[in-house]
Amino acid sequence: MCRFLIYKGREMFMSDLITKPEQSLIRQSFKARERQEPLNGDGFGVGWYMPEIDLTPCVYNDLRPAWANRNLHRLADKIRSTCLFAHVRAASGGMSVSEANCHPFEYDRFLWMHNGGVAEFRKIKRRLRASLDDEYYDLIQGTTDSEHIFALFLNSLAPHMQDYSSQILAETMVATIMQLNDWSKNAGIERMSRYNFAVTDGQNIIATRYVTDASVEPHSLYYASGDAFEAVEGSYRMRPTERHPRTVIIASEPLTEERGYWTAVPANHLVMVTPELHIRVQPIS
Amino acid sequence: MCRFLIYKGREMFMSDLITKPEQSLIRQSFKARERQEPLNGDGFGVGWYMPEIDLTPCVYNDLRPAWANRNLHRLADKIRSTCLFAHVRAASGGMSVSEANCHPFEYDRFLWMHNGGVAEFRKIKRRLRASLDDEYYDLIQGTTDSEHIFALFLNSLAPHMQDYSSQILAETMVATIMQLNDWSKNAGIERMSRYNFAVTDGQNIIATRYVTDASVEPHSLYYASGDAFEAVEGSYRMRPTERHPRTVIIASEPLTEERGYWTAVPANHLVMVTPELHIRVQPIS
Amino acid sequence: MCRFLIYKGREMFMSDLITKPEQSLIRQSFKARERQEPLNGDGFGVGWYMPEIDLTPCVYNDLRPAWANRNLHRLADKIRSTCLFAHVRAASGGMSVSEANCHPFEYDRFLWMHNGGVAEFRKIKRRLRASLDDEYYDLIQGTTDSEHIFALFLNSLAPHMQDYSSQILAETMVATIMQLNDWSKNAGIERMSRYNFAVTDGQNIIATRYVTDASVEPHSLYYASGDAFEAVEGSYRMRPTERHPRTVIIASEPLTEERGYWTAVPANHLVMVTPELHIRVQPIS
Amino acid sequence: MCRFLIYKGREMFMSDLITKPEQSLIRQSFKARERQEPLNGDGFGVGWYMPEIDLTPCVYNDLRPAWANRNLHRLADKIRSTCLFAHVRAASGGMSVSEANCHPFEYDRFLWMHNGGVAEFRKIKRRLRASLDDEYYDLIQGTTDSEHIFALFLNSLAPHMQDYSSQILAETMVATIMQLNDWSKNAGIERMSRYNFAVTDGQNIIATRYVTDASVEPHSLYYASGDAFEAVEGSYRMRPTERHPRTVIIASEPLTEERGYWTAVPANHLVMVTPELHIRVQPIS
Repeated sequence: MCRFLIYKGREMFMSDLITKPEQSLIRQSFKARERQEPLNGDGFGVGWYMPEIDLTPCVYNDLRPAWANRNLHRLADKIRSTCLFAHVRAASGGMSVSEANCHPFEYDRFLWMHNGGVAEFRKIKRRLRASLDDEYYDLIQGTTDSEHIFALFLNSLAPHMQDYSSQILAETMVATIMQLNDWSKNAGIERMSRYNFAVTDGQNIIATRYVTDASVEPHSLYYASGDAFEAVEGSYRMRPTERHPRTVIIASEPLTEERGYWTAVPANHLVMVTPELHIRVQPIS
Repeated sequence: MCRFLIYKGREMFMSDLITKPEQSLIRQSFKARERQEPLNGDGFGVGWYMPEIDLTPCVYNDLRPAWANRNLHRLADKIRSTCLFAHVRAASGGMSVSEANCHPFEYDRFLWMHNGGVAEFRKIKRRLRASLDDEYYDLIQGTTDSEHIFALFLNSLAPHMQDYSSQILAETMVATIMQLNDWSKNAGIERMSRYNFAVTDGQNIIATRYVTDASVEPHSLYYASGDAFEAVEGSYRMRPTERHPRTVIIASEPLTEERGYWTAVPANHLVMVTPELHIRVQPIS
Repeated sequence: MCRFLIYKGREMFMSDLITKPEQSLIRQSFKARERQEPLNGDGFGVGWYMPEIDLTPCVYNDLRPAWANRNLHRLADKIRSTCLFAHVRAASGGMSVSEANCHPFEYDRFLWMHNGGVAEFRKIKRRLRASLDDEYYDLIQGTTDSEHIFALFLNSLAPHMQDYSSQILAETMVATIMQLNDWSKNAGIERMSRYNFAVTDGQNIIATRYVTDASVEPHSLYYASGDAFEAVEGSYRMRPTERHPRTVIIASEPLTEERGYWTAVPANHLVMVTPELHIRVQPIS
Repeated sequence: MCRFLIYKGREMFMSDLITKPEQSLIRQSFKARERQEPLNGDGFGVGWYMPEIDLTPCVYNDLRPAWANRNLHRLADKIRSTCLFAHVRAASGGMSVSEANCHPFEYDRFLWMHNGGVAEFRKIKRRLRASLDDEYYDLIQGTTDSEHIFALFLNSLAPHMQDYSSQILAETMVATIMQLNDWSKNAGIERMSRYNFAVTDGQNIIATRYVTDASVEPHSLYYASGDAFEAVEGSYRMRPTERHPRTVIIASEPLTEERGYWTAVPANHLVMVTPELHIRVQPIS
């Protein structure tokens, strides 16, 4: 299991999201709450957009645990962004710890993260790879199911790559999950898979909370929106607004002790955030 | 806080001590039991003796967590030793994660480990360094209190370096602790320090369980002895013997679920193991 | 380009092969002679056999350059073996530096190394992968052409896996190269590929010196044999013997200044070493 | 030996200084020209100022060679600065490769780099440390002579810390070198030391080119100034100006093939750059 964090809104320092809040992603990396194994020490990654420079994200990742990474702490204090993806990883059983396996994965303007896993992935891996155009086949550098599914998502999005809406991204995400379900069924896989995916192009965001077995709780996923996410007397909070929100956070766990303004994404639903920060929650089906 | 393990006895594979047992040191590195913060992910080290080659130990250490270290797992499956020190580290607050700060520290035939810390170490650091002969001053490569105290121990042992008994090692250890206590008192340090130290030359072993405040429990420390430490139907145990033991293990935590044959070292005592595997427990005072 | 070293013979310390000789592999890692770019700083690996323990090799690799790796130096001083593969890597243009891309690659009893590259590998990569049985397909953890070709070699060897001779290994190696040539031709690849491969099971060794363009010199490859490889007054040499050799070294470059007893493998030939240390040089065709 | 680079002027992308120019610092890291051992693969560091955020620099360093560091390449493409220090390291003989030993060293607003070394540093190390106030003594995290000398420089600057000019920085630098010379003489050190130091507070820069033996050439050091350092048709150059320069670069080696506008700093001189980009060259004596 892993933990991830998504931010979109006013320009903020990375540290106000990933190192300073009470239940920050860094803290989740060694003391996650909503999971049994509390440890995410098998590498981390953060990707962020600086639209004043260009449309592609900058990614920083490392195999060493986030909590001890001085570079991460120093960069977080100086780098500001309006859109950020961050991920701490707990390598699943057999998977290796390598930079090629660190989330978020990137392609052109896109970033992709995953919390969960495809049960018995090797049984559908060859089928998945065979379905990819060379462009996306050649992207794959590591061995994770997560990166393979990113390639699958991009392959499905390809016809719309020059012109798509938030809704098309959401539909492509749903189609990706349905495709995985089909292949898993055909391969006779009966064990449960969990698909908390997140994708962004720096403007639109789609994040899913999904499990293939409806009798089971998916991995946790929350979102919150407001005017700004800020520290007041040392304690972080989302400043509420009566008007259109200027800040959205989606995260595996609430970043604050105060949980009132954090909404759990319903099981087998996705959250869509548009470039104008409209938030929509839709079923995945 | 950290966790450590000491083995002396029949030649054993490293894996039978640090990767395979139920509550192995590797497991303690991400799920220690007898401490509040269960995580020791800031580097590890292992040192072992191969007397058929020479008298100095071989040390392998790494900054990345022990649990994800493929090299460690592969070496552990192939390397055998009759005397081994292993340590997983949780970097204390301000201390940096670097190879120079990984235990065990080595000098000539000696290995040294520490679980605990000197309160407000910087207040006595200059005094400690000033007391060292160049030979031991120049050993210090890192910034830990632990390594500095090793240099202090060696400096005290220097007059006996060519000819010492287990008892002299034990007395030097006690003198080292008393010296730290004196300096701490003179520096006006009132906070408590914890000194679970371990030293070996491949033949003799001294391990302490000590805290400067008698009203407080020191960090845990256990030992067990028997004929052999071995897996029986997949479960490790110490095979008992009515005769002289051929195997001794000293560890921050028992390596097995079965705790019956693990003896807690009393507070502010040390365990001495002689080359002939005689075990003595003595008060530190 | 990379550099590699193969040893088989009397039990030797790793250090006498990879760190101490004048032109040791470590030295080749920062100052190779017979190549234009003298640097091999993108990771290294060493695999060795300890037949007194079992038939599979132990592998130690790391992304950091071999010359600065304290663990490597310490292990090399204490570990002895009768059969060793070692490799220092210069990552080719687009390829990433990751542990999964470090040679030697291992599978069961086998180790594999490569110095060279498949021109435009991505044009035949899917074809190659499609040809593999699941058993060998699932082995692939990284992105190098080298690891893919190892899987191809194993796939070809599979029918003989329980019973093969040196000659069958050599024929499988030749078949592997011929297969690559076929696929490259079919894919319209005209650029030259270099295939200095090495494979061992701890008993037999096959090493090739091959380039697809006969008008070009392949990467260098030498071998030497004798009674023992040893230091005499600080300088390493192969002690000659009139009888059957007890030591064979195959290396990208001679390990000693004295080059008299190093024989260059002819272009597009392979060297076979049998379990009894018989050495045969055969054309690849 | 090492290589370093200093930039001050218009806001520039890091990549235009350290990764893209023909003879960039990255290239110098594996193929330095003006030195015998061409390799600087033992870690690197870069520090830069973002005055729109605050006065302290951001530092990114890593033990792995700069040339293979994907994070460095990605950050360099997105980060802009008006003042930058960068350093690639070749660890001297006995010194260890650790993050604590990576340049530039930082303290508050200051960055410090060194190319060279103190001969027989251990003979003056204790004397140097004893001279430091606790504030600067406690800074020292590693084992390099370079970091110790930075502490010595800061200790000398302490009385002026709240109010100093470029000239005072230059005088403190000269006093630091003279102090080293005194101690070395008193310690009976006869071997030559090389002191190419650089210090900045983000506004002022001092860089020295110095060797203790006047009959020997110091390590190389160049500077260039102009209107802007920019790529013209893929090739970098310093755009000249008839007016006051808006860009200054000081570097161990020219960054461009064209060397006409690079001025060698004379032996045993320093270059001072003021906040207004006035450049002065002064003798060290």
